[in-house]
Amino acid sequence: MSVLVVGSVALDTVETPFGKVDDALGGSATYFSAAACHFTDVNVVAVVGEDFPFSKIDFLKDRGVNFDGLIQKPGKTFRWGGKYHLDLNQRDTLFTHLNVFEQFDPVLPEHYREIPYIFLANIHPQLQLKVLEQIKKPQLVVMDTMNFWIEGTPESLKQVLKKINILIINDSEVRLLSGETNLFLGIKKLLQLGPQMLVIKKGEHGAFLFNNHAYFWTPAYPLEQLFDPTGAGDSFAGGFVGYLAKTGYVCDKNLRKGVVYGSILGSFCVEKFSLDRLREIELEDIEQRYQQFVRMTKIE
Amino acid sequence: MSVLVVGSVALDTVETPFGKVDDALGGSATYFSAAACHFTDVNVVAVVGEDFPFSKIDFLKDRGVNFDGLIQKPGKTFRWGGKYHLDLNQRDTLFTHLNVFEQFDPVLPEHYREIPYIFLANIHPQLQLKVLEQIKKPQLVVMDTMNFWIEGTPESLKQVLKKINILIINDSEVRLLSGETNLFLGIKKLLQLGPQMLVIKKGEHGAFLFNNHAYFWTPAYPLEQLFDPTGAGDSFAGGFVGYLAKTGYVCDKNLRKGVVYGSILGSFCVEKFSLDRLREIELEDIEQRYQQFVRMTKIE
Repeated sequence: MSVLVVGSVALDTVETPFGKVDDALGGSATYFSAAACHFTDVNVVAVVGEDFPFSKIDFLKDRGVNFDGLIQKPGKTFRWGGKYHLDLNQRDTLFTHLNVFEQFDPVLPEHYREIPYIFLANIHPQLQLKVLEQIKKPQLVVMDTMNFWIEGTPESLKQVLKKINILIINDSEVRLLSGETNLFLGIKKLLQLGPQMLVIKKGEHGAFLFNNHAYFWTPAYPLEQLFDPTGAGDSFAGGFVGYLAKTGYVCDKNLRKGVVYGSILGSFCVEKFSLDRLREIELEDIEQRYQQFVRMTKIE
Repeated sequence: MSVLVVGSVALDTVETPFGKVDDALGGSATYFSAAACHFTDVNVVAVVGEDFPFSKIDFLKDRGVNFDGLIQKPGKTFRWGGKYHLDLNQRDTLFTHLNVFEQFDPVLPEHYREIPYIFLANIHPQLQLKVLEQIKKPQLVVMDTMNFWIEGTPESLKQVLKKINILIINDSEVRLLSGETNLFLGIKKLLQLGPQMLVIKKGEHGAFLFNNHAYFWTPAYPLEQLFDPTGAGDSFAGGFVGYLAKTGYVCDKNLRKGVVYGSILGSFCVEKFSLDRLREIELEDIEQRYQQFVRMTKIE
């Protein structure tokens, strides 16, 4: 099955204890595509400015990512700048210049409207809704969000939650959105707001999937060198949704494998700056790491 | 196989957001025994004062725990007081009265010296060494430690590390003892100091086992009500070492299952104050939770 992603295509300036890059390719839709394209064909809805260097996404086109829904508008491309501490879980946002993204009005090309697997990356809930309204027969809708929307536009966010199947979120966001300090009580509360399932990203502590019937946990890949965490969450989502779309069937077994593929794509993402590592890897590398996950979690 | 544990038998005063207990049964050897006794016979080496209410350990005797090595000395029993915050990962130690524990000189009863499975709970490294010297043919030596000994008596600690098989430790202690910020580099460094294996306890994030050949990760049990975290680490050790002793064979498969049993016993421990939950459970409850662990980690 095909996947549609709506999100950002951006230029990131990132500093970590290991180096710095300026105006490197970034954005949620970009990371998602670079991960998901290993499993299925991906269709991007996003906006860039007049200054966008299209050659930077050539490698994604070569991997079959469709950019018919990437529109170019007068003005500058969305730019984000961040600096990571020695503890890479800590980061300071240095700047966020929305630029053309501020007026982003996602109108889907006609042939996008039949796509059955949808990923709503972390954008304004009203835009997420607007995209969903244009999809004719969604089979699986997965969304991401962040504290900015949880605190700033809670009512719009709750409208979207009613229309989706799976919410990908981190543990502090669960606590913020549910008002519960105990994570598992918080998850149960969120499951009453609409989604049938939650995928909780816990960074170096792994990820887990929770619905009313099952609970599945996978570790993070044990990396000796975490280089740049930017994009890990969107790469996770790309691996997860991409794998599910490839199977075309959302069942317990595929969901579990999807969470593992999500963790794997997230682990590759953080090994280099920007999308540098994701563009290098092949399905073979992914499958090799998948076998390692099986080995490192097998009890008997 | 039989297990020997050397550690503390104490009286704890604990306050959590859910209540308070005074002079409740506590101590590393006690928690360890209450967990390990479900799998094999446990033999305790510890000291208490004249004020110790022996009736508090009757339930352990009923479960076959041997206290021939528990000596009574003039003076008061070791007492610890702590207060947990709403985030139960945060606690303040209110007092530590070593009392008779200050002069503790572990001399093993003759029939203890043949015991093959040894757990050295978190006590002064010199005392851990002294116990080991009395053991005739140790088959498996597992130890615990803490930042107090890592910072205060690093040389003695390194002497013990040379003589053990498995170190149970948490992630911040790995970083402190190895001087490495990356956990996996830290682990590799510690493996050069003596132990063949490390078991890393990560509390709500699970636990993992690491040696030069394998890596195994297990989640924490998803508890909706974490009541009192005191003793969780020693209960983990009890489940882990107890299960291994029951099998009598330290292989990859048994180690993995041991880590799972450790996590299970830790999860029961924190459901009530003191040893209240551990004294209620039966092997059947443990096995039920074991099946849940298998289900929640099974990829395919």
